Amino acid sequence: MILEAKPSSVSAVIMTQVVLPYHTNVAGNMHGGEVMKLMDTAAGVAAKRHCLNNVVTASVTQLAFLKPIFLGDLVICNAELTYAGRTSMEVYVSVKAEDMNTGTFRDVCEGYFFIVSLDRNGSPAPIPPLLIESDAQKQQCEAAKLRIEQAKKAKQTKKV
Amino acid sequence: MILEAKPSSVSAVIMTQVVLPYHTNVAGNMHGGEVMKLMDTAAGVAAKRHCLNNVVTASVTQLAFLKPIFLGDLVICNAELTYAGRTSMEVYVSVKAEDMNTGTFRDVCEGYFFIVSLDRNGSPAPIPPLLIESDAQKQQCEAAKLRIEQAKKAKQTKKV
Amino acid sequence: MILEAKPSSVSAVIMTQVVLPYHTNVAGNMHGGEVMKLMDTAAGVAAKRHCLNNVVTASVTQLAFLKPIFLGDLVICNAELTYAGRTSMEVYVSVKAEDMNTGTFRDVCEGYFFIVSLDRNGSPAPIPPLLIESDAQKQQCEAAKLRIEQAKKAKQTKKV
Amino acid sequence: MILEAKPSSVSAVIMTQVVLPYHTNVAGNMHGGEVMKLMDTAAGVAAKRHCLNNVVTASVTQLAFLKPIFLGDLVICNAELTYAGRTSMEVYVSVKAEDMNTGTFRDVCEGYFFIVSLDRNGSPAPIPPLLIESDAQKQQCEAAKLRIEQAKKAKQTKKV
Amino acid sequence: MILEAKPSSVSAVIMTQVVLPYHTNVAGNMHGGEVMKLMDTAAGVAAKRHCLNNVVTASVTQLAFLKPIFLGDLVICNAELTYAGRTSMEVYVSVKAEDMNTGTFRDVCEGYFFIVSLDRNGSPAPIPPLLIESDAQKQQCEAAKLRIEQAKKAKQTKKV
Amino acid sequence: MILEAKPSSVSAVIMTQVVLPYHTNVAGNMHGGEVMKLMDTAAGVAAKRHCLNNVVTASVTQLAFLKPIFLGDLVICNAELTYAGRTSMEVYVSVKAEDMNTGTFRDVCEGYFFIVSLDRNGSPAPIPPLLIESDAQKQQCEAAKLRIEQAKKAKQTKKV
Repeated sequence: MILEAKPSSVSAVIMTQVVLPYHTNVAGNMHGGEVMKLMDTAAGVAAKRHCLNNVVTASVTQLAFLKPIFLGDLVICNAELTYAGRTSMEVYVSVKAEDMNTGTFRDVCEGYFFIVSLDRNGSPAPIPPLLIESDAQKQQCEAAKLRIEQAKKAKQTKKV
Repeated sequence: MILEAKPSSVSAVIMTQVVLPYHTNVAGNMHGGEVMKLMDTAAGVAAKRHCLNNVVTASVTQLAFLKPIFLGDLVICNAELTYAGRTSMEVYVSVKAEDMNTGTFRDVCEGYFFIVSLDRNGSPAPIPPLLIESDAQKQQCEAAKLRIEQAKKAKQTKKV
Repeated sequence: MILEAKPSSVSAVIMTQVVLPYHTNVAGNMHGGEVMKLMDTAAGVAAKRHCLNNVVTASVTQLAFLKPIFLGDLVICNAELTYAGRTSMEVYVSVKAEDMNTGTFRDVCEGYFFIVSLDRNGSPAPIPPLLIESDAQKQQCEAAKLRIEQAKKAKQTKKV
Repeated sequence: MILEAKPSSVSAVIMTQVVLPYHTNVAGNMHGGEVMKLMDTAAGVAAKRHCLNNVVTASVTQLAFLKPIFLGDLVICNAELTYAGRTSMEVYVSVKAEDMNTGTFRDVCEGYFFIVSLDRNGSPAPIPPLLIESDAQKQQCEAAKLRIEQAKKAKQTKKV
Repeated sequence: MILEAKPSSVSAVIMTQVVLPYHTNVAGNMHGGEVMKLMDTAAGVAAKRHCLNNVVTASVTQLAFLKPIFLGDLVICNAELTYAGRTSMEVYVSVKAEDMNTGTFRDVCEGYFFIVSLDRNGSPAPIPPLLIESDAQKQQCEAAKLRIEQAKKAKQTKKV
Repeated sequence: MILEAKPSSVSAVIMTQVVLPYHTNVAGNMHGGEVMKLMDTAAGVAAKRHCLNNVVTASVTQLAFLKPIFLGDLVICNAELTYAGRTSMEVYVSVKAEDMNTGTFRDVCEGYFFIVSLDRNGSPAPIPPLLIESDAQKQQCEAAKLRIEQAKKAKQTKKV
């Protein structure tokens, strides 16, 4: 069976959350772990929308915390596919924080999630190809392949 | 000082959440209280974006649970202003659930949140007027006024 | 099978909770969503005690937040049936906050929850009639019928 | 200043909670730690109502888990003073579980919490005497004194 | 079948946790109930490692809170078997708090957990004997037997 | 002021957690976001123990999820410094899961956290050097420098 290619716009998702005392760390800002949890969830939603299978995060790379996120901020998390292989995908997740008192936004976090599609037995399952619609998407896709290649090498180096 | 009118599109917000075991009730579906908490948060974000002040929910009415929400669903909560008075607003919140295995959506919940804008001393604070841009918005605004009128009457009846 | 009528005193419940940092909003007071969650839970307990079936909240109306609830307050939530139809009930929920430093109480929230009784297949299930024991209860029951009637009308208006 | 004696009925509190998936352990029953947290909170409320000061739990003894508590049960936690010294109190906490499907109750847990009253500087603060109103209360109070005596001895044995 | 004796070092566990706003009480310190929950979990892990069965806490005694635990502290919870009978064990749990700004430690809590081993039907299940390896362990074991004896007596007194 | 070098053994930390229903994802396994939150916390503790300052995670790389973690597993998270620069550190975090029914362990996750030390004004603050005590540590440190170099390059490529 050949699966029809889908553009990333079909699976892209925006997840938002108000930072409550419940999400804060000792310094009173949003806990880095809570940010990562939100990003992982958003990446999983985008991946699942693309393949309509169960998915599992296999690795995360180049996750960068750019600025602190404060209590009361609205956190806006964007997840969008950059690459789809035979049974796995890369999702780029970027996070903005909105200062609710001023209505201004700032970039606070970003990272790449490598996600595998699974069938009901937990084996890797085929997914639709990613329909590339612009030069920017093409560049992103090439960069994704490099990251995946690099990750494989890092794994092998370790084993030796 | 006269505050410039804003359309509801400027403050409207979409908040999404994956239903985890943490959010479930005894039957294994999303806890109604968790749905209301998400709706209240979204209503507050829309209101705060409109007035850029602190806000507090004063009342909720016609909150209807239409269908159950299941573990693993993506909950998509839309909040949009229907009315703005001198220091208070009404926000309409509607919730969809996305079945992540099929990619289908269903309407699951809706309700009206009446929210007051507060200054730093906790007194009601003036807010921008709502810019009405379509007939549908005009109708919504009239219906909102009726609901607010009705709520006032219900309160008075009680006191007698 | 005819189910025996039960007075509301048999199913009424009082649920209490100390407001911890976990329950607070950005302003440091109890999150309105947490209050609604507690109220929904209490309403469900009263309804379930009445019918000994699974229950599900169908709608909420005239929910009013009267005063803020502070960190450290004891929240006392009363739920009591006002009406029982063939397969559904209305529960009145009122909330008091106790200032633990002074021992004083204040009314902080109230609302009406319309709840449906379900059998094991998820279909509406017959429930015991509500035994009316006083004039006050009779008045409450009449008011409940009006609210339910009004909610039905609001729904129909919408569909047209 | 002499503080007026108060009977235990003035400070006694009933706290209730529905067991949600959130509160469960690996076996799917209520986590013992969640039960203890609820008991500690109830003991603290009763103590604070008695002395209207900040309070802190100093020790817990004879805490017995009698039966498991299941998902969906209503947990009913009673806390009542058994003894009041110059700056400290003992609170007896007993827990019942209500099976919401049958309306039957069972005793599930009990224990004794020894609690100290603190002033604003964190030093022990004088509290009202406990007004003994029945023979049963007198017996409980004597048993409390024995437990407190025993706890002191256990502490000294350890230090030697 | 004779089960081979195991020393307590095989099952002993150290569980650690950073105190986040989520874990705090009204005073801003770690909630006593959260401390007890952590201790119960650690006791259960040590017991389960000893018998490799399901386990359930039957009682807790001599739980003493020695000093407050502050927001941002690292809580270090040690659990170690003191006694193993035919189907039940006693676990001693002691808690230290590390001030992360100075690197200093203080003893904050300790207590004894009496835990029963269960087979798949929920009946008490035989466990390995505890291998005593030092005089200190022998003394602890004798003290444990006394505590268990005392607890049985307290139960009987109550029933009379 | 010259800060004295510290070996990684002084700051290394082991954090453990039992996987409760609260931590699970839709599939009933430990939520990847909860794993990342635990890893970030452990990395922060090791970093804070090294520098005794406030710390903030700047980036995460090569985070690999090797195997699923199941409900009821004991998660054992090790964090240990691999590199210390003038004001920043790299911490290697590896996670094992212990099957509590069999007592067997498996490697489930690992990753590298790059963390910055901050003074009270939020500016980067000098930290002690890392005392290298073995060839393995020396290799780790060189690999860390490569990862940091690579991350800087990836950032610059992006900006162009």
